[in-house]
Amino acid sequence: MRSLFGVLPNIQLICRRFTVKEKFSRKRQVLLSLRIKNMQNPSFEEVLVPLRKLAKEQGNTVQKLKDTNAPAAEIQKAIQALKLTKESIAEKEQEFASNIIKVDRFKMEDLLKRRFFYDQSFAIYGGVTGLYDYGPVGCAMKANLLQIWRNHFIIEENMLEVDCSMLTPEQVLMASGHVDRFCDYMVKDVINGECFRADHLIKAHVEKVLNSKKSLETCQELTDILARLDGFSGEDIADVIKKFQIKSPTTGNNLSEPVPFNLMFGIQIGPTGLSRGFLRPETAQGIFVNFKRLLQFNQGKLPFAAAQIGNSFRNEISPRQGLIRVREFTMAEIEHFVDPSEKTHPKFHRVANERMVFFSACNQVDGEPPSCLTIGEAVCDKLVANETLGYYIARVYQFLLKVGVDPNKLRFRQHLSNEMAHYATDCWDAECYTTHGWIECVGIADRSCYDLTQHSKATGVRLVAEKRLPEPRQVEMVRCVPDKRSIWLKFKADGANIIKTLENLDKEACLHLQKQFESTGQAIVDLGDKCFKLESNICKIEKYMKAEHVEEIVPSVVEPSFGIGRVLYAIFEHSFRVRDNDEQRTVHIFQIFHFQYFSVPAIMAPYKCCILPLSANVKFDPLVEHLSDALRIKNISHKVDDSSGSIGRRYARTDEIAIPFAITVDFDSLLEPHTATLRERDTMHQVRVPLSELPTLVEDLSSGKVVWSDVMKIYPIFEQQEATVKK
Amino acid sequence: MRSLFGVLPNIQLICRRFTVKEKFSRKRQVLLSLRIKNMQNPSFEEVLVPLRKLAKEQGNTVQKLKDTNAPAAEIQKAIQALKLTKESIAEKEQEFASNIIKVDRFKMEDLLKRRFFYDQSFAIYGGVTGLYDYGPVGCAMKANLLQIWRNHFIIEENMLEVDCSMLTPEQVLMASGHVDRFCDYMVKDVINGECFRADHLIKAHVEKVLNSKKSLETCQELTDILARLDGFSGEDIADVIKKFQIKSPTTGNNLSEPVPFNLMFGIQIGPTGLSRGFLRPETAQGIFVNFKRLLQFNQGKLPFAAAQIGNSFRNEISPRQGLIRVREFTMAEIEHFVDPSEKTHPKFHRVANERMVFFSACNQVDGEPPSCLTIGEAVCDKLVANETLGYYIARVYQFLLKVGVDPNKLRFRQHLSNEMAHYATDCWDAECYTTHGWIECVGIADRSCYDLTQHSKATGVRLVAEKRLPEPRQVEMVRCVPDKRSIWLKFKADGANIIKTLENLDKEACLHLQKQFESTGQAIVDLGDKCFKLESNICKIEKYMKAEHVEEIVPSVVEPSFGIGRVLYAIFEHSFRVRDNDEQRTVHIFQIFHFQYFSVPAIMAPYKCCILPLSANVKFDPLVEHLSDALRIKNISHKVDDSSGSIGRRYARTDEIAIPFAITVDFDSLLEPHTATLRERDTMHQVRVPLSELPTLVEDLSSGKVVWSDVMKIYPIFEQQEATVKK
Repeated sequence: MRSLFGVLPNIQLICRRFTVKEKFSRKRQVLLSLRIKNMQNPSFEEVLVPLRKLAKEQGNTVQKLKDTNAPAAEIQKAIQALKLTKESIAEKEQEFASNIIKVDRFKMEDLLKRRFFYDQSFAIYGGVTGLYDYGPVGCAMKANLLQIWRNHFIIEENMLEVDCSMLTPEQVLMASGHVDRFCDYMVKDVINGECFRADHLIKAHVEKVLNSKKSLETCQELTDILARLDGFSGEDIADVIKKFQIKSPTTGNNLSEPVPFNLMFGIQIGPTGLSRGFLRPETAQGIFVNFKRLLQFNQGKLPFAAAQIGNSFRNEISPRQGLIRVREFTMAEIEHFVDPSEKTHPKFHRVANERMVFFSACNQVDGEPPSCLTIGEAVCDKLVANETLGYYIARVYQFLLKVGVDPNKLRFRQHLSNEMAHYATDCWDAECYTTHGWIECVGIADRSCYDLTQHSKATGVRLVAEKRLPEPRQVEMVRCVPDKRSIWLKFKADGANIIKTLENLDKEACLHLQKQFESTGQAIVDLGDKCFKLESNICKIEKYMKAEHVEEIVPSVVEPSFGIGRVLYAIFEHSFRVRDNDEQRTVHIFQIFHFQYFSVPAIMAPYKCCILPLSANVKFDPLVEHLSDALRIKNISHKVDDSSGSIGRRYARTDEIAIPFAITVDFDSLLEPHTATLRERDTMHQVRVPLSELPTLVEDLSSGKVVWSDVMKIYPIFEQQEATVKK
Repeated sequence: MRSLFGVLPNIQLICRRFTVKEKFSRKRQVLLSLRIKNMQNPSFEEVLVPLRKLAKEQGNTVQKLKDTNAPAAEIQKAIQALKLTKESIAEKEQEFASNIIKVDRFKMEDLLKRRFFYDQSFAIYGGVTGLYDYGPVGCAMKANLLQIWRNHFIIEENMLEVDCSMLTPEQVLMASGHVDRFCDYMVKDVINGECFRADHLIKAHVEKVLNSKKSLETCQELTDILARLDGFSGEDIADVIKKFQIKSPTTGNNLSEPVPFNLMFGIQIGPTGLSRGFLRPETAQGIFVNFKRLLQFNQGKLPFAAAQIGNSFRNEISPRQGLIRVREFTMAEIEHFVDPSEKTHPKFHRVANERMVFFSACNQVDGEPPSCLTIGEAVCDKLVANETLGYYIARVYQFLLKVGVDPNKLRFRQHLSNEMAHYATDCWDAECYTTHGWIECVGIADRSCYDLTQHSKATGVRLVAEKRLPEPRQVEMVRCVPDKRSIWLKFKADGANIIKTLENLDKEACLHLQKQFESTGQAIVDLGDKCFKLESNICKIEKYMKAEHVEEIVPSVVEPSFGIGRVLYAIFEHSFRVRDNDEQRTVHIFQIFHFQYFSVPAIMAPYKCCILPLSANVKFDPLVEHLSDALRIKNISHKVDDSSGSIGRRYARTDEIAIPFAITVDFDSLLEPHTATLRERDTMHQVRVPLSELPTLVEDLSSGKVVWSDVMKIYPIFEQQEATVKK
C-alpha cells in the first residue's frame, strides 16, 4: 500500500504495491526485452529505437487488418513480418545484455558469505528469513555509507538531524494511515496453513504461463495482469487466482481467499497490556510529530530540512532476495519542509547541469525508452514537478555515484499516476539495475502537506508555519461590543459570564448573532448550564479592519528516502569484479586463488589499507607496528595480515574484502631510509614509498584528496623486489 | 535480574537487581552521608576518614556496653558521643557536598528541553513514558559520542564490528537465560490495576519512614532492607510489603502479591503467529551467535574483540529519571574473546599508570571509602581480577574523560559477590555522579564462558577455538579392528554394516566392548533395527598413541558495555555551567539572557562553530557564505545565525547549545586582508584571525590538534571593534 521509500498511495487502493520492479524475469525474451528496453546506454538505444518504432507500426498494421476483416493470408503475412522484427529486437537486446549483465550473482553471494560481509541472522539456530547480520566488512561499509550520507546531506545542507523512538503508539500510525492501510494480500494453503504473498504467487504463475508460449492474446492478457498487479484489490486477486486455478507452489493444495495482512509488528508498551503500539515501519513519522520543535529550533523559518537515520521494521509475509526484502532495515530519510507556493531551491543552479536518466510516467505508459536529460532541462520541461524536488533528485544522483553506484545502471523512474498517493504531486524512484532487475533504492516524493495535516487532525495541535506577507493585508474583522451596564442591571450575577462570552465570540458567531437580532430582535446565548435571551440593544456588532503581517501555512514536504541495505547491495553488484586470471595465475601456478574483488571507492572501503610483512621474519615486526600505530593515530581503519600465506594469496584475500591499498614490508624496507611498496587493488600496480610518507598518503587516497594516477607519477613504480638481503 | 550493562546474575536470584545505585536520597542526612562517603576527592577524605574511624570505634563501644549490660547512664553517654561525632561527619559532608553538587537540574533540564537536545517522544500525542527523541543538538552529540567510541575502541584495537538484528527468536533468548529470568517484580493496585515496580515502592516507602526519625534500631533494619533490596526474592518483597503495610502511592489502595514481569517486548515474526520472538534486551547476544564466523574472520586466532552499536529494548514497569531509565536505548558493547588461561593483555603496559578511583566490594561491605590507585597497582594487588579486565577498565576511563565526563565524578565500583553472576569472576561498573546519585554508565564484566556454552548446548554447534599446544601432546587412542573375513562369512549381507559400525566405535564404546568380551566372551552390537551377537575373536581392540597439536577451548569473554544515553546524560550534568552573570550583564544591561552553557570538549560539540554576521548588513553576506562553504568542504558542522538579535544575545544562544567557537563577521572584516573574530565559549575570549586561516583553525581546534591557549598566543586578542566604517 506504500512504496518502500515513497508515499502512501491512493486511498482507494487497499494494498501495498510492488516496491521492487521485478516484473520481468530474465528467462523470457518478451520480458527480457521489456527490461533491456529500459537500459539507457545511448549507443544501444541508437540501434533499438528505430527497430521498436518499426515493430510498433507493424503491430498497428496487424490490428488494422484485423479490424477491417482483411483476408487471413494478408493478416498472416503482416504477423510474420512483425514476428521477424520482434525477433531481431530480441536478438539485439540479448547481445547488448550480454555486454552489460556480467555479474555472477552466485559467485558474488558466495564471497559475501564466506568473508562475512553479511549473512542470515541466528544461523546457528536455523536462521530467520528476512533478517541479516552485517559482519565486520559489511558493517564498516555500512558505517561509511552513513557517514558519507551525513556529510553529503546533513552537513552540506545544514539539516536538522533527529533520532526518534522506534516503538510507536497506535494513535500515531492510525493518523498516518498505516494501521488501516499498510497491508499486503496473503493467501494460505488450506491444508497446511502455509502463507504466501498473493501478488508474488500471481507473478510467478503468470511468468510460468508466459514461458509456455501461449497465443498472442493470452500473452497480452497476462502481460496486462503483470502491469496492473500493483494496484489490484482483494477481489481482483481472488479473480485471477480462480481464473488461473493457482495452487500452493509447494504442495499443490488449494488456496484460501486473499486477506489483507498488516505488515507492522505489534507490541504492548508497559506492563498493563492496555497501551498498544507498533515498531515503526518508516522513520518519517518521527520527524512529522516533532515538526513544531524543529520549526522552533529553526527560529520559525521555512524552508528547512530534517533528517533521520535509523531502523524500521516490516513483517514481510515471505521475505526473499537477500538484502532487498527484509524484515528489519536501516533507512535514511529527509523531510524538507517548504512553503507550498515557493518550491524553488536557492542552490538549484549548482546542480542544474547534472545529466541523468529519467524514465517518465509517459514513457512507461507509451512503451518509450527512458531519456537522458540534465535536471535543469527536466524541471524546465515540467517533467520534474518543481525545483525543490529536482534539487534532491540531483543530490541523490551525486550521492549514489560518490558511494560507488554505476551511473550506467542507475535511472530515475517516475511513479505512474495510479501508483502515486492521491495527495502526492510527483514521485521519482532512484532505481539500480541488478541481477534481480531494477530495484528501488531511493524514493524521492513530494508528499504535499498530507502528514502534517493528518497529525494536526488527530491531536488538535496546529502544525503550521507563519509566513510573513510581502505587505500587511487588511482583513475585515467583526467583534461584539456588549453594553455592560444594561447587562449588569438585567442579569446581575450572571453578567460577568455573559459579557465575557460576548466579547470572545469569533467572527462567525458574531455574524450569526447579528442575523438572529435582525430576523427576530432577539438571540439566545448558551453558557453551558444556562441559556439567556438577549434583546438586540444589549450589544453592538462592529466591523473593523485589521492589518495582518503573517499568514499561517501548512508546509509541503519533499521526502528523499533511502533504503540503506538496498543501496549497499547495488554497490556490491556494481563493483563486483572477477579478475582475468592469467595476470596472477602465471605467478602462482600451484595455488588456486579467488581472483574476485569489489572495486568500491576508497571512501567506502571497509579498511583503507592492509599491512603485509613479506614473511614471518621478526625483523619486519617493528616496522609493521610503527606503521600500524601511525595509521591508528590518524583513525585510519586498517588490517595487518601477518598470516603465513604467500604474498599473492594474501593480496587476493585483501582484494576480496575490498581493501583498496596494500603496504608490503619487505627486505628492502629494512634499509634506511625505510621504504615499502604500496599496491592498488584495481590496477594491481605498485610503487615504492618512503615509510614516513605512507600514513599521510593512505589518508589522502582514502579521502579522495589524491588519486592513484597521481601517485604513479610521483613515486617510482615497483616491479619486483630489488634487495639482495635475504634473512 | 541483570545489571543494565553487566552480566546475568546468580541463578538463585529471580529478579533483576537495581541498576542505578540510587539507594541514597538527597533529602536525608543518613543517606546523604552514605553517598558523600563515596565521593573521592582526596582532600575531603583527609578530613572525613579519621572522623569515620572515630565513629566506628564509638559504635563498637556502644555495642560492647550493651552486650555487657553496662549501666544505662554509661550507655547513654556513649551513644551521645557517637551522635556528636556522626553529626560532625554529616556537617562536614554537607559542606563538601555544597562544593561539589552545583548542578541545578531543573535549570539544566529546562534548557535541554527548550533547545531540543532531547524530549519526550510523541509529545503531541501526550507522550509515552520511557521514550525520548533526540533533537538536532542531542542527535549530533550522540553521533559524535559514537564516532569517538568507534575510533577509541574499534579502530584503535582492531575490533570486528558487527550490526545484528534486533528482532530475536525466542530460542536464542531462552538459551541466554533472558526468557526465564529477565524480570522485575511488579505489584498492582487491587482496585484500579495500576502497576508499580515493587522494589521502587519499597525503596520510596523505606526512605519516607527513615525521614520520620524512627529509633536507631528501626533505622538499622530499614537501612538493611535498602542494602539487600537488590537481591530480594518474591517472598522477601511480599513480606516487606505486608510488614510495613505499603499501599499504592497514588490511591492508597491495597496492592497485589508481587509477580515477576518479564522486561522483554514480545513479537510475532512472520504471518503465521507461530514464530515467537522478542526485541533484543542487549546487543551482546548478536555477537555470541556469530562467534564462529567472527573467529573464522580472525583466521581462527584468539584473542579478538567484536563490538556492536545498536538499540536495545526493555519494557520497564514504570520508567523515570529521564534518559536514565528508558524503554528503548542505544548500547555499545564489546565482547573480547580470550583464552581463559591467558588473561594477560599485550598493551596493558600502555595504560598501567592510569590512576582512577576504585570502590571495591570489600570497601563497600566494610563501609570504607573508595581508594585511588593506578590500574597497574589494582591488577597487581588482585583487586581487579586480571590484565584483560584491567586494560578495559583503563580504556573505558580514558574514553569517558575524552568525551567530557568529570574525573572527580567518576568511580569504578566492583559488584558485590551476591550482585554478580555465579559464572562471573569479576565485574566493575563505571559510575558517574549526578543529581540522581551515582549512576551506572558502563559495566565491565568478565562473563567467563557462560554465553558460548549456553548457545552451544542449545544448538549443538561447537562454539570453541583451537589452541595450538606448546608441543604436541601424546594421547592414547583406542580403535576396533574387525576381522572382516570372519564377519563376511558369518553375517553375509549384514557384514558391511557390522564392519562399518565396529570401525566407527569411539574410544568409550571400544572399551565397553572389550569389557563385555572379557567378562562374557560375547557382545551385542545394535544396528538400529537388528542386533547381532559377536564372539570375542571377531575383532581386536587396539590401543595406540596419537600426537595432538591443538586442543579445543571455550573462550572466556570480557565485556565492556556502554549505556550511551546514560553517558550522554552524565556529560550534560558534568558540563552544565551557569555563568556568573556580571561578566556579560554589564554590557547588555537591558536584556535578560540565559547565561547557561555546556562546557563539552570540542570533539563532542554538536556544531563546531557558529558564524555570526554582526548585523543584517548585506555586505557581510559574501564573507559569511564564503566561510560557510569553506567549512562545509571540510565536513565541519556549523551554524549560521543571521537572526536579528544583538550579538550578545546570539552568543548566549550559541553557548546554550554547546558550540565551542563563534566567528563574528564585522565591519573590520570588510577591509582587506579580510579578518574576523573568533570567540571561545568557556573563556569568552576573542582573537582576530585572517578569514583564510579560520576553516583550518576551527578544524584543528575541533579535533583537539590545537588548544585555545595556543590560539591566544598566536593571534591578536580582540577587545572591541576597531573599525570606523559603519554602514
